[in-house]
Amino acid sequence: MSDSNLVNSLKFENGLIPAIVQDAETRDVLMFAFMNKEALQLTAETKIAHFWSRSRKSLWKKGETSGHYQYVKEILTDCDEDVVLLLVEQVGGACHTGYRSCFYRTIDGKTVGEKVFDAEDVY
Amino acid sequence: MSDSNLVNSLKFENGLIPAIVQDAETRDVLMFAFMNKEALQLTAETKIAHFWSRSRKSLWKKGETSGHYQYVKEILTDCDEDVVLLLVEQVGGACHTGYRSCFYRTIDGKTVGEKVFDAEDVY
Repeated sequence: MSDSNLVNSLKFENGLIPAIVQDAETRDVLMFAFMNKEALQLTAETKIAHFWSRSRKSLWKKGETSGHYQYVKEILTDCDEDVVLLLVEQVGGACHTGYRSCFYRTIDGKTVGEKVFDAEDVY
Repeated sequence: MSDSNLVNSLKFENGLIPAIVQDAETRDVLMFAFMNKEALQLTAETKIAHFWSRSRKSLWKKGETSGHYQYVKEILTDCDEDVVLLLVEQVGGACHTGYRSCFYRTIDGKTVGEKVFDAEDVY
């Protein structure tokens, strides 16, 4: 990772920063997760998205099990420097349910997303 | 708000749910904030985005001061039902700094966003 001040000034809350992942091509919002500093550093260095799993309390290389890696094209931050936005090339689908995006339903329960793989074949 | 089960099953953590706001037309991610239940209900009912300001500890109707309202076209949720994604029509700019999107810089410090108003004229 570069030593620019912006990277070093990013604000982690209880060691974590929220990360939004957007498909660089379709511009769909694919998922939302958290990163700790190590996950962000690994993401910036390897250009493959890494997160911190709060439930498993462990570093998580997205796609490790499924092969559905996220190749990172750009990392943006917001005005307050307390959120990051990853623009990625998504292999397969981002969602463990088989949908391309985790945001595949409206809050009224209507399915709007596209299923791209069968979760049972992958996990 | 409708009484669908999905709305009622949304998961709030310490009373809050993360909300990503995306421009329905340009597909830019505009901002990230939190909602409490009341903010989500008001958003769904009025179709104008409301949030919970953690710093001010108060309900916040986006655009109240600036007139830069977010007219909500659709509200999506993710597989875990613990994040919401608002697709909006953004009046003016989403960011208090004058940029169209809060995500106007890369973490390397490069400005990539577009300035659409002068913050000093608005606030």
